[in-house]
Amino acid sequence: MKYNEIFESAVDALKDEKRYRVFAELERIAGRFPRAIWHNGVDQREITVWCSNDYLGMGQHGHVTDAMRNTVGRMGAGAGGTRNISGTNHPLVALEHELADLHHKEAALVFTSGFVSNEAAISTIARLLPDCLILSDQLNHASMIEGVRRSGAQKKIFRHNDMDYLEALLKEAGSERAKLIVFESVYSMDGDVGPIERICDLADTYGAMTYIDEVHAVGMYGPRGGGIAEREGLMDRIDVIEGTLAKAFGVLGGYITSSEAVVDAVRSYAPGFIFTTALPPGLCAAATASIRHLKASSAEREGQQRQAQRTKDVLKAAGLPVMPSETHIVPVLVADPEKCKRASDLLLEKHDIYIQPINYPTVPRGTERLRITPTPFHDDALIEHLKDSLCAVWDELGLVRETPASAQPTRRKMEIFPAAGG
Amino acid sequence: MKYNEIFESAVDALKDEKRYRVFAELERIAGRFPRAIWHNGVDQREITVWCSNDYLGMGQHGHVTDAMRNTVGRMGAGAGGTRNISGTNHPLVALEHELADLHHKEAALVFTSGFVSNEAAISTIARLLPDCLILSDQLNHASMIEGVRRSGAQKKIFRHNDMDYLEALLKEAGSERAKLIVFESVYSMDGDVGPIERICDLADTYGAMTYIDEVHAVGMYGPRGGGIAEREGLMDRIDVIEGTLAKAFGVLGGYITSSEAVVDAVRSYAPGFIFTTALPPGLCAAATASIRHLKASSAEREGQQRQAQRTKDVLKAAGLPVMPSETHIVPVLVADPEKCKRASDLLLEKHDIYIQPINYPTVPRGTERLRITPTPFHDDALIEHLKDSLCAVWDELGLVRETPASAQPTRRKMEIFPAAGG
Ligand SMILES: Cc1ncc(COP(=O)(O)O)c(C=O)c1O
Ligand SMILES: Cc1ncc(COP(=O)(O)O)c(C=O)c1O
Repeated sequence: MKYNEIFESAVDALKDEKRYRVFAELERIAGRFPRAIWHNGVDQREITVWCSNDYLGMGQHGHVTDAMRNTVGRMGAGAGGTRNISGTNHPLVALEHELADLHHKEAALVFTSGFVSNEAAISTIARLLPDCLILSDQLNHASMIEGVRRSGAQKKIFRHNDMDYLEALLKEAGSERAKLIVFESVYSMDGDVGPIERICDLADTYGAMTYIDEVHAVGMYGPRGGGIAEREGLMDRIDVIEGTLAKAFGVLGGYITSSEAVVDAVRSYAPGFIFTTALPPGLCAAATASIRHLKASSAEREGQQRQAQRTKDVLKAAGLPVMPSETHIVPVLVADPEKCKRASDLLLEKHDIYIQPINYPTVPRGTERLRITPTPFHDDALIEHLKDSLCAVWDELGLVRETPASAQPTRRKMEIFPAAGG
Repeated sequence: MKYNEIFESAVDALKDEKRYRVFAELERIAGRFPRAIWHNGVDQREITVWCSNDYLGMGQHGHVTDAMRNTVGRMGAGAGGTRNISGTNHPLVALEHELADLHHKEAALVFTSGFVSNEAAISTIARLLPDCLILSDQLNHASMIEGVRRSGAQKKIFRHNDMDYLEALLKEAGSERAKLIVFESVYSMDGDVGPIERICDLADTYGAMTYIDEVHAVGMYGPRGGGIAEREGLMDRIDVIEGTLAKAFGVLGGYITSSEAVVDAVRSYAPGFIFTTALPPGLCAAATASIRHLKASSAEREGQQRQAQRTKDVLKAAGLPVMPSETHIVPVLVADPEKCKRASDLLLEKHDIYIQPINYPTVPRGTERLRITPTPFHDDALIEHLKDSLCAVWDELGLVRETPASAQPTRRKMEIFPAAGG
């Protein structure tokens, strides 16, 4: 067996399809976000990051970094064990209380990442429900797909945000059968939003459980940063709310909040929760500081919305093909994988701007795009510079400069071996 | 559908079986390891942790906490994105180089945990190999079992460390078929060691790939802390070495090291690697500092071995049933789930000692035990105190005080829904 050749050819296949990823090596500069140093192998250069998921710049907030540094000084770097074997640290318990309060739920459970929280919680919930049917939005994130798979439960995919489709599936399953609807609030590649209220209504009518991923919304929507469900007054109608500590909250880790019963069951049965070292006290304290700050302050949310809107307006006015988006996410259509990669390279090399190209299979072929995430720290001058740079790149690559009506805000994710994205 | 009742009764089932876990809430005290504050809901008390997996106390080492605090100050709390979308931070790249060097491999890949590294790497490797057969040691960790499952490949379990059994399975599979042998070096519940050289010989003879989990060995064995395979001069004979940054290295995260081809394939194809936020720069810098320190210093390893041996000797001399163990792990047999839990409770309440009870399904019924992990910081006086406390508890519970010959150093893990352990 020539094992190495098999792995080499698997990688070559991606190269042939222009899907091979090279990661940009960055060094963030706390206090000067969104500026960062780009290590390109030869030299180092300062650039502006326009695709960070540290959506509010909280990763550099003084409350957050102070909490982390102080706690590391007092309690050390790691947790020292799994939750059950000496790893349940005091700041972690405080964080779980903070999260339950954020979403007005009875209890919360923290995982090492949002990915693990989806994988572990969805699979465990669906396995504990006898003969459970999972109804999953077509555009759900890879981590939710993993959870659905791992559950072994039957699943049916409904067309993205299509409530007639979902209703038909619910009706077909009948009221006696256990049903779990899994969906997102903000879909991160297009910036559209799930019809949460309609889903809750359908769940009530047909007796289904609801599971929402608010990863791209927590911290950013709702008066206290509880997400889109908080903004729409719907948190109490959703059975399980899942989120991350690694995007708007600026740290690392993931969580679910739900009833005591659900949280205790996942805590007691999910291998991905049980058999792994707990989140370190320093990270937990930092996350708690971030959540608390964003519960009380709306300045970051307002700044983000303002600068995101401004970015959309300025780019559109320059004839750049901004795709429709209801949220802080600003996708700009390129519609060609090589040009998308090339645009990203030119932005970095000539204009000191870093925006990751988003190609198939993260988005459908023909909708390749640059996905821009303005934060409160992307000021008007930076937006101006972004617009000028994009226009220069557009011209250099011969890309069209007027919003094409055909820009479709949809994407499909490859379910098997999602090789790109992330 | 009464969903909540289903989750409640799932939890009640564990309570009935005496397998329901209550986590102890601890607050570690940097600089005074293994001392910690126990928050018991009513008040707070200082106790000694005797079951930490921060095996060398590196979580509180000045090099480690300084690296973390400085890096957080310079680069902020989080990575701000997935590896591909702005999350590949400079300290993470440095950490990967450090790890490749530690194991003398071409490349390394860092994950958010050891659990995720096993799950993602085993499943991806086995899926990329056409018609792969996985040969898995019976006592492999839950995270490896998840990886095997998730691969969808055929698997055969061989009796723990049984080389005749393994050889028979390899022979049966034939030399043409792709085969992956997955096993551990130090098995953490019994403290025994896998026959690495024999496994490598068999792999050569029958043309199999080898994958070792050195989670409970890295940092602690070998002249530079490369693990048991380093100690035995076998690192170059193993295809994939997996480890954690969360135990002896004292931080958080997991990794694999292997050939460029394997690492690039896992990097490019594993959803659990791709679709999740990268490890924060502060954690990466802390892990690198820890690895570097332990590459150069053997004092911690020697201190650990000395105090572990002393603990075994002192407890044995007092007639306590220490189970046979070749490593730093000191299991003491109780052989009854309720008494095991009770012993742990008494140690905490009356003697200010925290040792988690280990019951079924983490170990087989009838081999319930206290699993003690002496570190270089558990000095002779603490060992004396441990011995006295254990003797008092043994007497209080009417447990026998002489090493029973029947103490079997084996365990089985429940494969479905491992509800305890971790
Ligand atoms: C919708 C969604 N859910 C979950 C995750 C995973 O969260 P984390 O990065 O904390 O693992 C991501 C992205 O990383 C995501 O986009
Ligand atoms: C053998 C083994 N492998 C992997 C893991 C997971 O490592 P981590 O805690 O970094 O997730 C553990 C325990 O946690 C383990 O005991």
